[in-house]
Amino acid sequence: MADPTTSPPLTRTSVFAARELIQPFVHRTPVVTSRSLSALASSVSPWTSSRPSAALPTASTFGPGEKKEEEGKEKEDSSEGAGPGPAAQPPPTLRLWFKCENFQRVGAFKARGAFHAIERLKREPGWLEGGGPERGVVTHSSGNHAQALALAARTNGIPAHIVMPSISAPPKIAATRGYGARVVFSGSTSSEREAATALVVERTGARLVPPYDHPDIVLGQGTLGLEFQEDVAAQLASAGGPPYADAAPPLAERRLDAILAPCGGGGMLAGVALACEGTGVRVFGAEPSRGGADDARRGFARGERVTAVSSLTVADGLRTPMGRVPWAVAYERRLVAGVYSVGDRAIRRALRLAYERLKLVLEPSAAVPLAVALFDPDFRAMAAREAGPRGWDLGIVLSGGNVDLDALAQLLALDGDDDDDDDAEEEEKVVEDTTTATAT
Amino acid sequence: MADPTTSPPLTRTSVFAARELIQPFVHRTPVVTSRSLSALASSVSPWTSSRPSAALPTASTFGPGEKKEEEGKEKEDSSEGAGPGPAAQPPPTLRLWFKCENFQRVGAFKARGAFHAIERLKREPGWLEGGGPERGVVTHSSGNHAQALALAARTNGIPAHIVMPSISAPPKIAATRGYGARVVFSGSTSSEREAATALVVERTGARLVPPYDHPDIVLGQGTLGLEFQEDVAAQLASAGGPPYADAAPPLAERRLDAILAPCGGGGMLAGVALACEGTGVRVFGAEPSRGGADDARRGFARGERVTAVSSLTVADGLRTPMGRVPWAVAYERRLVAGVYSVGDRAIRRALRLAYERLKLVLEPSAAVPLAVALFDPDFRAMAAREAGPRGWDLGIVLSGGNVDLDALAQLLALDGDDDDDDDAEEEEKVVEDTTTATAT
Repeated sequence: MADPTTSPPLTRTSVFAARELIQPFVHRTPVVTSRSLSALASSVSPWTSSRPSAALPTASTFGPGEKKEEEGKEKEDSSEGAGPGPAAQPPPTLRLWFKCENFQRVGAFKARGAFHAIERLKREPGWLEGGGPERGVVTHSSGNHAQALALAARTNGIPAHIVMPSISAPPKIAATRGYGARVVFSGSTSSEREAATALVVERTGARLVPPYDHPDIVLGQGTLGLEFQEDVAAQLASAGGPPYADAAPPLAERRLDAILAPCGGGGMLAGVALACEGTGVRVFGAEPSRGGADDARRGFARGERVTAVSSLTVADGLRTPMGRVPWAVAYERRLVAGVYSVGDRAIRRALRLAYERLKLVLEPSAAVPLAVALFDPDFRAMAAREAGPRGWDLGIVLSGGNVDLDALAQLLALDGDDDDDDDAEEEEKVVEDTTTATAT
Repeated sequence: MADPTTSPPLTRTSVFAARELIQPFVHRTPVVTSRSLSALASSVSPWTSSRPSAALPTASTFGPGEKKEEEGKEKEDSSEGAGPGPAAQPPPTLRLWFKCENFQRVGAFKARGAFHAIERLKREPGWLEGGGPERGVVTHSSGNHAQALALAARTNGIPAHIVMPSISAPPKIAATRGYGARVVFSGSTSSEREAATALVVERTGARLVPPYDHPDIVLGQGTLGLEFQEDVAAQLASAGGPPYADAAPPLAERRLDAILAPCGGGGMLAGVALACEGTGVRVFGAEPSRGGADDARRGFARGERVTAVSSLTVADGLRTPMGRVPWAVAYERRLVAGVYSVGDRAIRRALRLAYERLKLVLEPSAAVPLAVALFDPDFRAMAAREAGPRGWDLGIVLSGGNVDLDALAQLLALDGDDDDDDDAEEEEKVVEDTTTATAT
C-alpha cells in the first residue's frame, strides 16, 4: 500500500481524482428506483408488508423526545418498533434511489478501492525501480476485498497474495484463485492472519493493501458517491423523471437529500461522506445491531471509536469495527450525520423485499441500509422530522451481491429459526473497548 | 379484447405504433452485459463452470451433419451434450446482451401486452357508448398475465375480473388482488376455467383479454424487441462499448445478430420476431423440453402446430402450447428462424448462473434462453457455423422475475432431487396432437 502520508488529502476533490484513475477499470453502476418500496418506506406500517401473514410487531415507545441512548447496552432489535400503535410516529416521505454496486466488478464496491490502491502504488516514486510489479500485493481477507484485489492485481499483471483462514468456504477460495491470486492459508484469529501476512511480506516484499483503513481505499470507494449524486440529478432532470414525481416537489428543485450506506470498517461510508462534503447531501451509516456490530453507532454516541467487535450477525460483511481513517472522516470531521442500526430480522426482511420488489440479488450486508430506511424507528422519526412534508430523495447504497446461493433459502426465510436471533445473540460474546466514554 | 379483425396488421410498423400507445405506462427496461457469461458461452465446456465439483457430462454425438430430427419422440436432455469429447464442436463466439424484463412493471414483460390490449380497447368504436369502462375486462390466469391485466385495468380505472383455480397459491391470489382485481375462483381444468370465464362475461359484460393468442398482445410484447435493438446499437456506438469489444469486429459494424426469447404461448416470441422483421436480426425460440413442453420445436419440425402440452417443467411459465396467432407469425411467415430446447437441469444451472453472475432475480422460465445459449449443443453448433470467427452479438430476453422465494433454494440446488428429473419425466403424461404431420 502506498504510504498513507503520501496519499492525497481526504477531500471531495481527491475523490474526483480517484475517479479519473479507476474509471477505465470499474463499472459505472446503474441507479434504480422502485415505486412499491418508496410507497412502503412512506407508509405507516411497512413492517407487515413483506408477508401478509406475519404477526404484527408491538408498537414502539421510542420517540424523538423520549429516546435515551443507553451506553454500553446493546440496542434492541429496533425493527420491532416500526408497527402502528399509540406511540407510532407519522411516517416520513421517502423517495428511494438505489445504487447497484452488486453489478460492480467482482460483485461489490470493493473493486473501486482495490483498483485505486493499485493505481496509487503504480504512481509511487520508486515503485518500478524497487521491483514493485514483481513483488506484488498482499492482503488478508476472505471476502469481497480479496477478490477485488486479486482482480486489480491481475489486470495490472502483478502478483496478489491473499491470506485466508484455512477454514474458509471452498467456493470463496476457488473464487479468489479464479481471479488469479495465490491463496495463503492461516489460522482464524486476527493474530494468526496478521502473522501469516507479515511472513508473506517478509518473503516476497509484497505491499500490504488493507481492506478499509487507508486513505487510498476510502477515496476509491467514495467514487460511488459521486456517481450516485450525478445520476440521480440526471434522472430527475430528464423528461420523465421517476414515476412518483407527481407526489414530490418540482423536479428542477430536487436532488439527493441524503444517502444511507452500510458501515463495517467504514471505508466506503467515509468515502461517500467525502464525495458529499459541501454539497448539502447528508450521509448516514447503517449497521447491524446483533452482537454489538453497531460499533459505529455506539462510538458516535459516546464520542470514542469502538475498536473490537465479535458478532455473528447475518450481515457478515459488517462484523468489523470502524477503522481509524474512516472514523476521522466520519466522526471527527462530522461528515457522517448519524449511524443507525437494525436487527437481523429486519435485515432479512429487507433482503427479501429486495429480491421480491427490486429483483436484485444482494448479500445480506447490502440490505442493511434498506432495513434502516424501512424498519428503524429512530431513523424514520428523524427523517420525518427533518424532511417534513416535502420528503426526501434518499439514496440507498446496495453494496454487493456475493451471496452463498446454497444458504439463500435460510437467509430469505421469515419464519423458523429466524425468531431465534435474540436467543442466539445472548450466547455471543460482545468484545468491547472498555475505555470510559469521553464527552462528544 | 378488441375484435382481432380490427387489430393493426402484424408488421414491424404496428409494433412501433404499439410502443407509442404503451410508452407512458411501461418501463424501458435496461440491457446489461456480462463478461463472464459471454466468456462462458464462448468456451468449449460451459457445462462444468457453474460448480467445479459437478460431474462432467458425457459427450454429444450430435453434429450438424449427423443430427436426425426424431418425430414424436421427446428430446433428450440436450444439456448432457455440451461437454468436451471426441465429437465436441468448436464453441461459438457469443457476446451476450440481456434485456431485463424482470425489471418491467409487475416483474415481467406481460405488462406490455396487457397495457396495449387495454389501449386498443379504449380506441374501439363504441367502447365508451357501450359501457366498456364500466364492464371491464376478464381473463383466466394465475400467472404474470393476471397481474399485468389487473394493473393495466386499475391504471385506467376499469374493473378487472381474474379467474384463478381455487387451488392457486395464496401469495399469487394476494398479489393479484393487490393490483385491485376481483378474483373469481374456478376449478383447475381448462374447461372449468373457461366456463367460469364465460360466466363472468355473461354476468358483467367484461371483455376477454387472452394471455397470448391475440394480435394486440403479440404487438404489445414485441415492443421489447424494438428497445433491445436500439439499446444494443446505442451501447455499441457509445464511446466505451462493452468491455469485451476488443475481441470483436469494430463497434461501428456491430448490432444484434440474433435474439433468443422464451417460448410458451409464443406471444412474445412472435412479437419480437415482428420487431425484427426485415432488419436481419435472427430470432430464435427457447423452450423447456421436459414432458413435451418443447411443442414449438416439435411443431416446427413436423410443420404443424402442437396444440396440447402437459408438462411439469420447472419453467412453469412455458408449459402452454403455442397459440394460433403466434404460430402464424413464427412458423407460417418464417419469422422465427428456429426453436431450441433444454432440459430442466440445464434451466436450473442457467438460473443459478444468472443469480451468481448477473445478480438478477429471475423466474425459471426466464433462464431458458440462457440455458439454450450455454448448454444446447444444437443451438451452439448452429451458432458456431452461422456466426463464424466474427461471432454473434446475441440478445437474451430475461422475461421475468416473479419467483417463489420460498421455493428458490430447491430451484437453485444443483444436487439432490435435481437428478430425478428424467425419472419424473417418465411419469408425466405427454398429451399430444395426434394429427399426422404434414410436410413443411
